[in-house]
Amino acid sequence: MKILSFRYNDQLGFGPKVKKEEAVWDVLAIQEELQVLPSYAKTIVEGMTNGFEFVEQTRKLVRAAEESENPAHFKYSFNDIEWLAPIPRTTKNIICVGKNYNEHAKEMGAAEAPEDIVVFTKAPTAIAADEQTLPIHANVTSQLDYEGELAVVIGKKGKDIPKNLAFDYVFGYTIANDITARDLQGKHKQFFLGKSLDGSCPMGPYLVTKDELPNPQNLTVVTKVNDEVRQNGTTLDMVHTVEDLIVEISRLVTLEPGDVILTGTPAGVGKGMNPPQYLKAGDVVKVSIEGIGTLVNSFE
Amino acid sequence: MKILSFRYNDQLGFGPKVKKEEAVWDVLAIQEELQVLPSYAKTIVEGMTNGFEFVEQTRKLVRAAEESENPAHFKYSFNDIEWLAPIPRTTKNIICVGKNYNEHAKEMGAAEAPEDIVVFTKAPTAIAADEQTLPIHANVTSQLDYEGELAVVIGKKGKDIPKNLAFDYVFGYTIANDITARDLQGKHKQFFLGKSLDGSCPMGPYLVTKDELPNPQNLTVVTKVNDEVRQNGTTLDMVHTVEDLIVEISRLVTLEPGDVILTGTPAGVGKGMNPPQYLKAGDVVKVSIEGIGTLVNSFE
Repeated sequence: MKILSFRYNDQLGFGPKVKKEEAVWDVLAIQEELQVLPSYAKTIVEGMTNGFEFVEQTRKLVRAAEESENPAHFKYSFNDIEWLAPIPRTTKNIICVGKNYNEHAKEMGAAEAPEDIVVFTKAPTAIAADEQTLPIHANVTSQLDYEGELAVVIGKKGKDIPKNLAFDYVFGYTIANDITARDLQGKHKQFFLGKSLDGSCPMGPYLVTKDELPNPQNLTVVTKVNDEVRQNGTTLDMVHTVEDLIVEISRLVTLEPGDVILTGTPAGVGKGMNPPQYLKAGDVVKVSIEGIGTLVNSFE
Repeated sequence: MKILSFRYNDQLGFGPKVKKEEAVWDVLAIQEELQVLPSYAKTIVEGMTNGFEFVEQTRKLVRAAEESENPAHFKYSFNDIEWLAPIPRTTKNIICVGKNYNEHAKEMGAAEAPEDIVVFTKAPTAIAADEQTLPIHANVTSQLDYEGELAVVIGKKGKDIPKNLAFDYVFGYTIANDITARDLQGKHKQFFLGKSLDGSCPMGPYLVTKDELPNPQNLTVVTKVNDEVRQNGTTLDMVHTVEDLIVEISRLVTLEPGDVILTGTPAGVGKGMNPPQYLKAGDVVKVSIEGIGTLVNSFE
């Protein structure tokens, strides 16, 4: 299932993409008007606390709408909605893994990727949506850079998760661009500030449930700036796999439904070019991951 | 006003300390039963979004209870409540400033405190309460350390806050112990993991509203381990003052009501001793700040 979050008539909503249509089901409206289920989540994060039961419930709502007198009443064309990030607001900062691809670690000046995971966070106020125009922040940085990444959405609370159960804790996947002000990242030593400018964490377009992506370690990750391919990697090259990351992070930190883990970026960031090429107003960045789609943002 | 958060009969609540009594007013119960105000916050963070109006509303509720037939009905003895952190769950990670006292920067091996602020975060799942027994986490660290700190609670959304308005964005202050696994802090380079173990961010006992602490830059901060004084500092020695921190952080990151900024720790942490003295099961750590109180936690 491909789930998206949106704003329609000033209301926040979420729901699955309508199959073969450029439209979304408003599952909150379906439940409210048709009273299909005894109860249903009010938000996507609340839904995920029910784990995969949430997906089953959502399927029931869609079937009820399809069988209703006027299915169109519950569908909104993509032209009529404002897209939001699939998780419009995380309840923790976004958890990010640094230097998780060897070739990227090298372009950043390291001999190789660190053996122990490097984890920093981005403020949830940095979350932005697909198609959103993002600020270039010229007043505080002259080195804004992109990082296309596979994002893992956690669906179940867990601590000390064993490797053989790691995927039980995954709800699904989306695409993130871990936008980074390189000058601030260096100046402030710890990465939080340089990684948390408003708009610096666009995610989307969809949250793809894990049943549709049974192997997250064999996906191409392509980032284009103004249609020039800059990153052309594969999640096969992750140093710490999605399973490893869940094990290693949950060994220390309690994971919760709706938490988002950005799994690191492959080689090809602007800072790694010779000379470095940072983002400028007017640029359009597209991050595509097989099976999920393309996240598009322009800068101004 | 000294506000605390608590659990009573399985219900979460908050309210001001009863003057001259070891008890708290249950302001949610006062509002529900006496209907004093047209509306009132459901949580302390929601309340703070109304800024200082929230304090005025809370005073009205207390007066209504005092004038009611049975004021005792709305007061709970400290013996009967479970204490929670004043903000039991932040909506962002806790924002922490590193090396903000010169003598602490030196004991950690630096020549002096860094000129540019160093900011990392702690997961909100690390939040714990006054009097709570905290895990020593012997399975993942042998170098658990304390850091007594003044915590600033933000009361108003802001970005690019000018210095002369910085205090308008402060709701109040509390005490925090920024518990740190030094081995993990070093091993993982970025501080998030070593700073985010469950229970590693006790805060409390009270949130003291800013009117009671007009000058946060002249407060003693004393940390004792088993009644031995380890840290005996003053917020006079902060390199970046509370005002500076609000200006510098909000230049890059949007601050929101309920956000908590830990302002750094003075000299005297366990790692700085010769030989280093880390926490062990059975230890009791007390952090006292003038005008706020004492935060007490034991370890097991």
